[in-house]
Amino acid sequence: MRLGQLRAALVLTSALLALPAMADTTKATPTSKELIAKSKPAEWRTPDPENLLYMQLPQGRVVIELAPDFTPLHAQNIRTLVREHYFDGLAIIRVQDNFVTQWGDPNDDDNGDKSKIKPLGTAKPKLAPEYTRSIDPKLPWTALPDGDVYAPQVGFSEGFPVARDPAKGREWLVHCYGMVGVARDVAPDSGSGSSLYTVIGQAPRQIDRNLAIAGRVIEGMPYLSALPRGTGPLGFYTQAAQRTPILSVKVAADLPASQRENLQVLRTDSATFAAIVEAKRNRRDAFYTLPAGKIGLCSIDVPVRTETSAEAKH
Amino acid sequence: MRLGQLRAALVLTSALLALPAMADTTKATPTSKELIAKSKPAEWRTPDPENLLYMQLPQGRVVIELAPDFTPLHAQNIRTLVREHYFDGLAIIRVQDNFVTQWGDPNDDDNGDKSKIKPLGTAKPKLAPEYTRSIDPKLPWTALPDGDVYAPQVGFSEGFPVARDPAKGREWLVHCYGMVGVARDVAPDSGSGSSLYTVIGQAPRQIDRNLAIAGRVIEGMPYLSALPRGTGPLGFYTQAAQRTPILSVKVAADLPASQRENLQVLRTDSATFAAIVEAKRNRRDAFYTLPAGKIGLCSIDVPVRTETSAEAKH
Repeated sequence: MRLGQLRAALVLTSALLALPAMADTTKATPTSKELIAKSKPAEWRTPDPENLLYMQLPQGRVVIELAPDFTPLHAQNIRTLVREHYFDGLAIIRVQDNFVTQWGDPNDDDNGDKSKIKPLGTAKPKLAPEYTRSIDPKLPWTALPDGDVYAPQVGFSEGFPVARDPAKGREWLVHCYGMVGVARDVAPDSGSGSSLYTVIGQAPRQIDRNLAIAGRVIEGMPYLSALPRGTGPLGFYTQAAQRTPILSVKVAADLPASQRENLQVLRTDSATFAAIVEAKRNRRDAFYTLPAGKIGLCSIDVPVRTETSAEAKH
Repeated sequence: MRLGQLRAALVLTSALLALPAMADTTKATPTSKELIAKSKPAEWRTPDPENLLYMQLPQGRVVIELAPDFTPLHAQNIRTLVREHYFDGLAIIRVQDNFVTQWGDPNDDDNGDKSKIKPLGTAKPKLAPEYTRSIDPKLPWTALPDGDVYAPQVGFSEGFPVARDPAKGREWLVHCYGMVGVARDVAPDSGSGSSLYTVIGQAPRQIDRNLAIAGRVIEGMPYLSALPRGTGPLGFYTQAAQRTPILSVKVAADLPASQRENLQVLRTDSATFAAIVEAKRNRRDAFYTLPAGKIGLCSIDVPVRTETSAEAKH
């Protein structure tokens, strides 16, 4: 019972308390699952298969959604790398606890064999940084109401967590859990997408705007977050046998429909997403009696489901 | 080189830019490692062995520091459970990605065998909640300057992340990465410490003040964060074989000195800790050219080292 109740309590409940018409505080608010079950088909989007990467590990498939409206040069270069099979046979090279899991060419490391570095093919070795972009009023924008330690404004755009500085007219993707960033050399233009990382702990917001973010892991995050931590400096693996091999990375558009995941992502400009955000802010039920009344940007996981299921996978 | 530079860049640098007398912006600020190397012995504290728990897993030892100034009834009850060998032979029962790892009695779960629930011995089955406490001006308090989404004030006290509401005169431990909370039933007084959890992802701040926090994992966090995620609802393991057994939990004070870890924690009211915080806020070096100028409470990991080493383990 003790553990079961903790389980029950961790399900999201909705924001009844925020709605004057539903002031019955004795009633538990509906859960996120319930809100999703009542969502409309038009509130979900099927990501463009040109923007989906399938990274096959021995344990299973990781699906990454690229963000070409924020980092178009990186999306294009990563597609080129993928289509020329650059990542096939490379590996997870680093897992630093409460920070990042990183993958790429083991020989492109300080202790690697430089003579064996895999060539980038027709992909570019350098790209303009794309750390921030000018605010585009044509892109959807769902602001969060509770502020942020690091940025003047935060919210969601096209399913991604975004920060904005209206005074400077800039916006940028944020290093929340599961976001995929681009490793680079010292020079800001030295990132190509040939080595990527994803956040596996507390959002390292202090590195926002210092690295390009290419997208988000929308499926299979545990295959990256539960890996053994590297014991070398900053979580790099010290022995080849510790690395998880990358069997292949493919662009979903290059696969027949039968081999695709049919994932849908809840639109972050939908009424159901707004209701889920309010539920997070003001959850109250038999277990949680003190709603926070607030929510941080990186505490909201955008729901993902398969087309054939009415339930979210996360 | 590409990966090596990302490594180098992730080392903390100090806050020279924040100091008018050191306005040379072309010079990289010293790293956290360098700041720690210059720290004074008096800036480190050796936790009271009465407050240290050693949880032995097959993979290694996890060390938890209890926080009796914040949750004294829980500290006392957990010590009683430990000393009566309550946890020995129990297990990790749940790992939910980007949330918590939880341990306790598998039979005290919805699917457990209620007839086999392990008795609590002389420990109390219920405790006053201890979710918050009155602000005590005698406790050390190191405020952070950049605000917080959830609480009026945040900072550190005795090595723990703490939030404060001065208007209500209350303060409470915060669910940052590695903090150890007390699972409970629906009733607020139903937590005993017999099932505990630790945060393994983005800080779930919205549950602050709804659960008691007993302390912090100060050593061995990867043994809890890198475990396979449970595939049952909310990350509970569905089969006994998936659970990691707890070989034993002991109070450090009950072990001879030769079997203790000799861990030291940097005082959060020390000058070196303040310098590390400033370094986090204003890191600038060859790699990171845009300092955040801000830091969130849960983005600061309080350094821990062994007495015999001048370097921090994390």
